[in-house]
Amino acid sequence: MTETERVAVLAHEKFPHRSKTANGVLRYTDAEVVAVLDRDNPGERAADLLSAVQDAPVVAEFADAQAAADGEIDTLLIGIAPIGGGFDDSWRPDVRAAIEAGCDVVSGLHYFLAEDSEFSALAAEHGVELRDVRRPHDDLTVAEGRADEVAADVVLTVGTDCSVGKMTTTMELAAAAEAAGIDARVIPTGQTGIVIEGWGNPVDRVVSDFTAGSVEEMILEVGDDHDLLIVEGQGSIVHPAYSAVTCGILHGAMPDALVLCHAAGREAVHGYEETPLPPISEYVDLYESLARPVHETAVVAGSLNTRSVDDDEAAREAVAAFEREIDAPATDPIRFDAAEIVEVLQ
Amino acid sequence: MTETERVAVLAHEKFPHRSKTANGVLRYTDAEVVAVLDRDNPGERAADLLSAVQDAPVVAEFADAQAAADGEIDTLLIGIAPIGGGFDDSWRPDVRAAIEAGCDVVSGLHYFLAEDSEFSALAAEHGVELRDVRRPHDDLTVAEGRADEVAADVVLTVGTDCSVGKMTTTMELAAAAEAAGIDARVIPTGQTGIVIEGWGNPVDRVVSDFTAGSVEEMILEVGDDHDLLIVEGQGSIVHPAYSAVTCGILHGAMPDALVLCHAAGREAVHGYEETPLPPISEYVDLYESLARPVHETAVVAGSLNTRSVDDDEAAREAVAAFEREIDAPATDPIRFDAAEIVEVLQ
Repeated sequence: MTETERVAVLAHEKFPHRSKTANGVLRYTDAEVVAVLDRDNPGERAADLLSAVQDAPVVAEFADAQAAADGEIDTLLIGIAPIGGGFDDSWRPDVRAAIEAGCDVVSGLHYFLAEDSEFSALAAEHGVELRDVRRPHDDLTVAEGRADEVAADVVLTVGTDCSVGKMTTTMELAAAAEAAGIDARVIPTGQTGIVIEGWGNPVDRVVSDFTAGSVEEMILEVGDDHDLLIVEGQGSIVHPAYSAVTCGILHGAMPDALVLCHAAGREAVHGYEETPLPPISEYVDLYESLARPVHETAVVAGSLNTRSVDDDEAAREAVAAFEREIDAPATDPIRFDAAEIVEVLQ
Repeated sequence: MTETERVAVLAHEKFPHRSKTANGVLRYTDAEVVAVLDRDNPGERAADLLSAVQDAPVVAEFADAQAAADGEIDTLLIGIAPIGGGFDDSWRPDVRAAIEAGCDVVSGLHYFLAEDSEFSALAAEHGVELRDVRRPHDDLTVAEGRADEVAADVVLTVGTDCSVGKMTTTMELAAAAEAAGIDARVIPTGQTGIVIEGWGNPVDRVVSDFTAGSVEEMILEVGDDHDLLIVEGQGSIVHPAYSAVTCGILHGAMPDALVLCHAAGREAVHGYEETPLPPISEYVDLYESLARPVHETAVVAGSLNTRSVDDDEAAREAVAAFEREIDAPATDPIRFDAAEIVEVLQ
């Protein structure tokens, strides 16, 4: 997204705690977010519900977003990504209204808006674009095991689960690295990162045989032009549904270092509550031992999402406990600072 | 494929040692193979080049297959699957000739014949079908972590590498189980298994997020109707390109037991010769520790492909050494017998 773009973000019934894409865009996009659509929280302000984001009014529907923005909206972004990536028909009136108002619609869903007959016809009629960022390009292929050939150091964020802060950590590390004078580049692998960076392969949507290859392709494309690549991880290596993507990224990226991301208090796999998370130290062993035969690497730092922890003192204690479990320095890059992790990466 | 189908199998320049699909079909299909197309070996017989297969003449091109079959060919099968799954244009004259002769063409390539403009036009003209078995169906979704709910025991073949014998082991175990009076069913995950079984999801071709889900779907579909499911594994958990598929199958299948497959003498990843295989015992640890947080399992048996070993005595020694490395009974199901592994699975 560009600096001059005015964006409304749809996040019905999931904002602010289950709206990963919306939150990422509110935090990291250069574009102006004119409103967040959430029919559960009309009248609120984004910055009151989430820390470290650009502010925007929360409204119930697209017409209210238009009112809040004096009608000047360029883009409607689908800012939520339910398990499975389907389209919820309760969103249809807002998407319809946006297209009729001349807005492009950007979506990271598995369900492609451009293949929806109503939306595609309406978009043609109103001359707007339906941008499905999760549609992979056609030239992807299998990995050659060559990502370690690039000049840049490669860091990969890995997680104990989905939605623990890998994308956020990736973005915060990139910002902190730039602040420290390091020429860093994000390798986005999911819809939010791709929307923010305006570039990238949607690794969870590619043909499974090309999972590692789709990461390798990005690293080879830009890896000789920067000092540090920070690869956005996905899922978890022991996730009942998404571990394939995690494993493909781990072997395709051939990272020199791993940053393990976790959410304080998370005890079971998100959405699979009968599956408890194994001990944190087991994740360190698993990621390192699984990576080793392809490219040796180590968990050199941790990132703990302490959103569920009330005060800073308790959050610091949680970070300290996490550091002991991973035997490496850690932080909460949102509550505290990513700079100390960047020092470890240098 | 059906018993009455007469099939020519294209395996140019790769038969018999790099023609996995051709070999699997020659061993396990109920159909009649009338010829193998291999321009490097015309005049040979399939049964002289491969053990335990139905015999067929090896010919240089489709016209020779017609001559060998007195013109009666129903189907041309693309029997080789190069890395990346592309279509080699040197095969085009044979595919063209087959379509013009009224044959259906079955392919497990990533490249879909039905999307090739020449072939699709020619197929329409001659009223034949182009069957791309690697095209996934449209209703796949993410795994729910429910494969362990079925009545059947679930066994998964896993490997130290590609092309070590997972599909062969799967088929031999199924046959040996049936011979022992066990109601067993193969869960095919790759093009060869799907061609042989006439059913299955091409797991390496599905959207990466749906890798585990595409396996779970098959298990839930048939798992209450049989005593034993034998899931065909793919790749290896430390393969630079294909580990994503392996990992998704491991977590999607939630297997009760693993059979580790290896090829005697294999020291590096096939096609990635700079990447040595880790010690066999490390594979046992990796597969078990990676599976455990989702569903506890163990390597209970091994299958060693001893094709590269000259005599039976040396092969028995190699199997014995493999048994010590995995700390479980093993066999070569082609050279020796799969029955002893089936005993472990009961």
